Amino acid sequence: MEKITLKTLADLFQVSPKTVSKVLNHKPGVREELRKAILNKAEELHYVPNLFGRGLQGGSMKTIGVILSDNTSPNYSTVLKGIEASADKHGYNIILCNSNESKETEEQKIRLLTEKHVEGIILASVSYTTDVMKRKSLLGLKNLGIPYVLISRMIHDEEPHDIVKTNDIEGGYLATKYLMDRGHRDIIYLANKYSVTSSHERLVGFRKALEQQGLPFKQAHIIDQCESTMESGYKVMQAVLAECKDFTAVLAFNDLIAVGAMSAIQEKGYRIPEDIAVIGYDDIEYAKFTNPPLTTIRQDADRIGHLAMDVLLNKINNPDAEQQQIYLPPQFIERSSV
Amino acid sequence: MEKITLKTLADLFQVSPKTVSKVLNHKPGVREELRKAILNKAEELHYVPNLFGRGLQGGSMKTIGVILSDNTSPNYSTVLKGIEASADKHGYNIILCNSNESKETEEQKIRLLTEKHVEGIILASVSYTTDVMKRKSLLGLKNLGIPYVLISRMIHDEEPHDIVKTNDIEGGYLATKYLMDRGHRDIIYLANKYSVTSSHERLVGFRKALEQQGLPFKQAHIIDQCESTMESGYKVMQAVLAECKDFTAVLAFNDLIAVGAMSAIQEKGYRIPEDIAVIGYDDIEYAKFTNPPLTTIRQDADRIGHLAMDVLLNKINNPDAEQQQIYLPPQFIERSSV
Repeated sequence: MEKITLKTLADLFQVSPKTVSKVLNHKPGVREELRKAILNKAEELHYVPNLFGRGLQGGSMKTIGVILSDNTSPNYSTVLKGIEASADKHGYNIILCNSNESKETEEQKIRLLTEKHVEGIILASVSYTTDVMKRKSLLGLKNLGIPYVLISRMIHDEEPHDIVKTNDIEGGYLATKYLMDRGHRDIIYLANKYSVTSSHERLVGFRKALEQQGLPFKQAHIIDQCESTMESGYKVMQAVLAECKDFTAVLAFNDLIAVGAMSAIQEKGYRIPEDIAVIGYDDIEYAKFTNPPLTTIRQDADRIGHLAMDVLLNKINNPDAEQQQIYLPPQFIERSSV
Repeated sequence: MEKITLKTLADLFQVSPKTVSKVLNHKPGVREELRKAILNKAEELHYVPNLFGRGLQGGSMKTIGVILSDNTSPNYSTVLKGIEASADKHGYNIILCNSNESKETEEQKIRLLTEKHVEGIILASVSYTTDVMKRKSLLGLKNLGIPYVLISRMIHDEEPHDIVKTNDIEGGYLATKYLMDRGHRDIIYLANKYSVTSSHERLVGFRKALEQQGLPFKQAHIIDQCESTMESGYKVMQAVLAECKDFTAVLAFNDLIAVGAMSAIQEKGYRIPEDIAVIGYDDIEYAKFTNPPLTTIRQDADRIGHLAMDVLLNKINNPDAEQQQIYLPPQFIERSSV
């Protein structure tokens, strides 16, 4: 079968390849009748534009890479959907990669994406760290000159990065302040076991709220053993309750952990919120349907995805664009678990 | 900055480009010391292999496309994670697209992916239909000669397609049979409002179970107004309960709808399962943590993702491979909502 090219179509209609190109790229300047005829013929002959050629000519493959820790996380899957919707609107495709919270995998994926000549990368990085390997990996990205934007998680580094995230210090503060306003003095924080900045920043907000009220901070109240799953929240809460119960409220790193914790609390015979109050983070769809419905801090995950794509496109189109750090305000959602 | 090529590296070490290629592609036959030196230098100079070149030479970009209706669905996000993990293991990347249950978007994405020269496509198609446009779009795929595999949803067509899915007739049957064994005679089915085969097949299983017991099938008991969200399950169930309550059990198209329905049922003052029993489908993570925990039919979503990638790779590597229709057995998960 002969390869159908722009020239094949141009010859058929006795027009210039440039005219055919205009039609296929939905640009104006070709009369309607001819436009339709060319489009129909292109479809009939299964014309496929040669994007590889574009790539070689220094043109654009219109593809970006997205690296998440886990695309099944309700929060990140919503960020991803926002990125995909915005990318689609701008004619871009996304290559999805999961790091599964492994630094090595994250580095490997960054390398792989650069090899595929993506135009940019959106990255929810595995950990904030002063680790040399990690810094090297990111400096590598910088040296390669590939635009990238961080989402939701910062990276500890000498230099600032472009980032779009929720103001998690404020989020942690809002949640803790609300618990204290309701009379709670002994609050435990079910933190993320991975040293991601989002978990650390919520802790900073937690401490800030305690300090404002002159309450002591107890290290024993920070339980940094949770993975971001219901199952993990359930098991960690079970273990905590088996040891002692010198607290009246729980702040969970996210809603998944909160849901698991609620289950362990109720199984032990405690009532929520009368005996133990629980507050989550993210406002995933399920938060509305827990029993009792979960009070939580809302992140606008869809907006984070759209904004990350905006910032990245700006960097792709203007290599000298100024860096942007966008911190979205968290939103307090009052339900019945506190 | 000069572009770093295989030849640059070969010249530096006074070896052939073939030797450098061996090292960079992790092939044997180069002594360890030289191997390490070349790898270090490649990293230092930020060498990036020219995959565009490979594409033009008729080689492989090692990229496939995945089209889902919505990547935030817990079931599909798990399928997607399985595909990504398997693709990664085989050195492939995935381009993710959402169709948002729009036939037009699905067609546009198929076209886009072929333009990007993906090697294959995994597709959870929007609808099963005899619609001409839809068939044309799929026949287009066939004519373009791009391997593709359907997941979870069939397509009504003259010819069979490669597909990996759960046996949904069996799943619908198992769920309904269990409800009847528990004494339920009046069961409503909260179906998917889109005409996807998965919803239709569960209905076939539902009817089969009724018929086996000689029970009449009531069209009024099929509520085909649900989208795949908790919110939709909640609203549809509210509307159903406002009209009448001539049923004692609910079979939901999936767990999301079941969770929303449970909330509407409890809000109305009915107890689950004493007054109304509820059974779901999928066994998403939440199912274990609802109150009461949700009895459901498990789909092995991760395995569907892995198998779909296996079937696709087989088609990519053996264009004459026989078609495969893989129907995974559903698994009954007994909890406390029936």
